[in-house]
Amino acid sequence: MEQLREAIERQGVGLGTDIVKVDMFLNHRIDTGLLFAMGEAWAEAFRDDRPDLVLTVEASGIAMAVAAAHALGDIPVVFAKKGATVVQSADMVQAPVYSFTHKTQNMIRIDKRYLPENSRVLIIDDFLADGEAARGMMLLCEKRKATVVGVGIAVEKGFQPGGRKLREAGVKLVSLAIVDAIEDGRIVLREQA
Amino acid sequence: MEQLREAIERQGVGLGTDIVKVDMFLNHRIDTGLLFAMGEAWAEAFRDDRPDLVLTVEASGIAMAVAAAHALGDIPVVFAKKGATVVQSADMVQAPVYSFTHKTQNMIRIDKRYLPENSRVLIIDDFLADGEAARGMMLLCEKRKATVVGVGIAVEKGFQPGGRKLREAGVKLVSLAIVDAIEDGRIVLREQA
Repeated sequence: MEQLREAIERQGVGLGTDIVKVDMFLNHRIDTGLLFAMGEAWAEAFRDDRPDLVLTVEASGIAMAVAAAHALGDIPVVFAKKGATVVQSADMVQAPVYSFTHKTQNMIRIDKRYLPENSRVLIIDDFLADGEAARGMMLLCEKRKATVVGVGIAVEKGFQPGGRKLREAGVKLVSLAIVDAIEDGRIVLREQA
Repeated sequence: MEQLREAIERQGVGLGTDIVKVDMFLNHRIDTGLLFAMGEAWAEAFRDDRPDLVLTVEASGIAMAVAAAHALGDIPVVFAKKGATVVQSADMVQAPVYSFTHKTQNMIRIDKRYLPENSRVLIIDDFLADGEAARGMMLLCEKRKATVVGVGIAVEKGFQPGGRKLREAGVKLVSLAIVDAIEDGRIVLREQA
């Protein structure tokens, strides 16, 4: 998506070999005009798959999920919460998400009532790196017998295996920008994204 | 705001004497149509105050801030992050937020660059109880010499002192619904809200 690629080229910061900072327009400060254009792009890509719910994880996925849901005709958004349930509850489903960056395993959880069986779910997230967050959300959907119609990502790190794994598993994945490398602080974007 | 009051009456759950659960349409599952109608209501209330930035705190404030910012012509959203900075950084400003519920003090923080001096800030949040989160965000604005043009709240707990304190301090406060009491699980809404 051209508008996001331009924002990354103009404002994004590459750190080391694998960190892409988009704090200034996506993850801390939000460029609201760009956000809703991204929502339109995901809606265009997934409208024919008839999602009836957008699923994301708090916190930084929420704004993007809301923009996509709005463009899809104001379908509901559900955001998974981080952390295990304090009390094991029959109302909750949860899934582990391993962080390769922090080398820790965290749980994400959702109230079953908000992810009804047979839902058609569009998963939206800001980043796709190792694919652990997407995999965790897909597991929540599986546990609820909901159908994942696709995964919409803002920034895919093309040099990490998440995107390849999802595509190989036959998941419809739409990344609005794909970063192929970070070279001396410069973010190298894939052309076809 | 009639639409929010109806959602609270139909779906909200009152627990004990002071907990209002709006998980099913605002804080975990989001009713996107209602969300954008709320954004319009805040925009109508604050448009003449010419805010150029919407400030909130992660995570559940983000969706509401995005809806308000969209209705105000896609002005930027900045969300404060929870937790103290790991490394004290000259780029960050932070403020303490005391939780009366958990009897703990937490920090909220923001990158200075995203809250420019002389900004005209509309603060948006889901709940107003003791007013600590709003006070923390107002302190961040004060530290950045930014002007708070007002505070927009979804659900004010009228039986807790936050709203009164803000109004007494001369802050323009617009709460879309005010809960006056919880009586035997029933949520009593103030008429004029």
